[in-house]
Amino acid sequence: MRTRPLKVALLGCGVVGSEVARIMTTHADDLAARIGAPVELAGVAVRRPSKVREGIDPALVTTDATALVKRGDIDVVVEVIGGIEPARSLITTAFEHGASVVSANKALLAQDGAALHAAADDHDADLYYEAAVAGAIPLIRPLRESLAGDKVNRVLGIVNGTTNFILDKMDSTGAGYQEALDEATALGFAEADPTADVEGFDAAAKAAILAGIAFHTRVRLDDVYREGMIEVTAADFASAKAMGCTIKLLAICERAADGGSVTARVHPAMIPLTHPLASVRGAYNAVFVESDAAGQLMFYGPGAGGAPTASAVLGDLVAVCRNKLSGATGPGDSAYTQLPVSPMGEVVTRYHISLDVADKPGVLAQVATVFAEHGVSIDTVRQQGRQDGGGDASLVVVTHRASDASLTGTVEALRNLDTVRGVASIMRVEGE
Amino acid sequence: MRTRPLKVALLGCGVVGSEVARIMTTHADDLAARIGAPVELAGVAVRRPSKVREGIDPALVTTDATALVKRGDIDVVVEVIGGIEPARSLITTAFEHGASVVSANKALLAQDGAALHAAADDHDADLYYEAAVAGAIPLIRPLRESLAGDKVNRVLGIVNGTTNFILDKMDSTGAGYQEALDEATALGFAEADPTADVEGFDAAAKAAILAGIAFHTRVRLDDVYREGMIEVTAADFASAKAMGCTIKLLAICERAADGGSVTARVHPAMIPLTHPLASVRGAYNAVFVESDAAGQLMFYGPGAGGAPTASAVLGDLVAVCRNKLSGATGPGDSAYTQLPVSPMGEVVTRYHISLDVADKPGVLAQVATVFAEHGVSIDTVRQQGRQDGGGDASLVVVTHRASDASLTGTVEALRNLDTVRGVASIMRVEGE
Repeated sequence: MRTRPLKVALLGCGVVGSEVARIMTTHADDLAARIGAPVELAGVAVRRPSKVREGIDPALVTTDATALVKRGDIDVVVEVIGGIEPARSLITTAFEHGASVVSANKALLAQDGAALHAAADDHDADLYYEAAVAGAIPLIRPLRESLAGDKVNRVLGIVNGTTNFILDKMDSTGAGYQEALDEATALGFAEADPTADVEGFDAAAKAAILAGIAFHTRVRLDDVYREGMIEVTAADFASAKAMGCTIKLLAICERAADGGSVTARVHPAMIPLTHPLASVRGAYNAVFVESDAAGQLMFYGPGAGGAPTASAVLGDLVAVCRNKLSGATGPGDSAYTQLPVSPMGEVVTRYHISLDVADKPGVLAQVATVFAEHGVSIDTVRQQGRQDGGGDASLVVVTHRASDASLTGTVEALRNLDTVRGVASIMRVEGE
Repeated sequence: MRTRPLKVALLGCGVVGSEVARIMTTHADDLAARIGAPVELAGVAVRRPSKVREGIDPALVTTDATALVKRGDIDVVVEVIGGIEPARSLITTAFEHGASVVSANKALLAQDGAALHAAADDHDADLYYEAAVAGAIPLIRPLRESLAGDKVNRVLGIVNGTTNFILDKMDSTGAGYQEALDEATALGFAEADPTADVEGFDAAAKAAILAGIAFHTRVRLDDVYREGMIEVTAADFASAKAMGCTIKLLAICERAADGGSVTARVHPAMIPLTHPLASVRGAYNAVFVESDAAGQLMFYGPGAGGAPTASAVLGDLVAVCRNKLSGATGPGDSAYTQLPVSPMGEVVTRYHISLDVADKPGVLAQVATVFAEHGVSIDTVRQQGRQDGGGDASLVVVTHRASDASLTGTVEALRNLDTVRGVASIMRVEGE
């Protein structure tokens, strides 16, 4: 074994960074044996240097992250700051100074993955980021390496633990969104500002990364259709139950049937209770991958948290260190298919639509005509008079598969019908 | 991209080999783009050269596998013959002649993994075998690479599709073993001679491979405790149901609580219906991995079959070809912990024991005394008079966790009690 240690600079020492530092210390011998050389924590860049960090030599702590990555003797930079800047500049500077990079930064990778990969290539450096998607669950490496000889057609999963916790709570207790969110916040599963999670930005970043890797093309955050889950109601869960479903916030990346384009989207959807994703509880994540030869694979585990995310970071750290020693780089960016990303309108899916309609003859015929005019075939209709006897009825329509554009057009036209008092809810149906 | 192709020799052209050849042809452009050079099928060694093989140039077919691997221009040998010889000699010869090897051979890897890895190291070659365990499910790579910075404590899974199909059938239809086996055979899920599957040899080989990689030590097939599933009865399933369980053939690899040794075992076990492994249906495989930092991960997918296994083989082929181009080798054998494998007696588990006893006062006290004398604590006892009024009763005991040796000793002593007419069944309880 080489005795001169590989030097690691840690950028950020919060929930994930402190776990990375802790494991690097407690498991130093194991890491050395697995890498073939010892690894040494050579510096830790933080914002608040006065904070006491157990197990970290204060002499290693600095507020000057830029100087740390410019030192020239750093082999690997571990970036767990998050956000776009200064993370992006620090990573680029790290490459320029001979370091490889392990990052957990989904937002940055989704926005600037292409440029960062190009910078890594320019300097014969590695850029690894298993921890950016679904925490501890190995997903980037299986997609990029294990399935490198296969053709992936679909990635479908729960990739945000906060929203899954909230939806699971709404499902199991009948709570409304706000009540479930409050509990998630109290238990530490939601941040003080939950926008990135509940509006689907976090899941969309992960969808962009997964789609790019799965289909060997370029998918940016802006390419991902995104609907959050703040409008999901207890009534939606009741509707879902009535058709043997539950509701999950899904990230879905698909290759078009003709193979010529891909789509990526994040939205709440009804899925059958019999689907394995339906039983993913609490803050867990799970991702289905469908490919030509392998068929259906599922990956399940903790999607966030300090230790699980650190596990993914350290797996990458070992790989990058091994590459450093052998003088090679790992499988990097692969976007050779250059498949375009189609807009949401071209996605083929199913709708569950709940309408408030006038309770009089001919309404169903009118509604059915609108669907037919938009080329949308109806699977089932459930009609019932309302309990309040107000002359209104409720009409629940579940469609067959159609383009999202046709479905949107149908709903627009329904809203314009005199006999339709309102569209109570619209939700896509997936996983069948 | 390099234009000179990498040359691949395929040993074996059965269910898996023919799929490998097919995908190498149909996905040639994708493979070239992902590797950075074209790959060419340079020869196919078979036993019956007269058999027509669609899509394979007859000029490539040979019966002389040894000559093929000795050609000297072969970059990668793909071994999908199976069995110990001639596979072992061919792989060794391949290394000696400058080739790396991708294998799907669980029996060989479980028996001679150490020697084969040493041979690969001697020649700076790669030995990859993702397809040897759980078909298409990425498992070797996640354990070896994704979790390289973590400490795995337990691997628990269903790694044999044939036996899972049979047990699932027995569970869902109430069928006996023979009836379920016959159906599995008719549907092609069981081989004409199902011994390797139903006696647990196949699962034991996979357990040996998984344990070695997970714990960075050496575990051979002979180290794995093995019980098949041919003695599982419909009555066992009824007992399992009574306690909210089902029965699965499990491969379980564990690090001892003190960290100083490991165990590996394959046997039928009751697991709670709420455990995710309980809902693994048909010929699917699923494996739980528990580690210090990542927590619980699960990997699920098709565990056998031509195309799924070929997917795993081709993922390895891409990785090995990339390594060839970069002049590096991938993460190879890692057995530095040298943790010894403890015998089954030291495994800590729970028992479900069904006894036929005399229906008279004092029997329960006698039985309970035997458990106490062996240091085995009882969790629950269920006693019931038999329907046939023959003076016998049935006593079902579920124990707390104890060493397997204590449990075995307890059962031996119970058999010697006058009041115990017989031990109807013994089964371990896992997954709680």
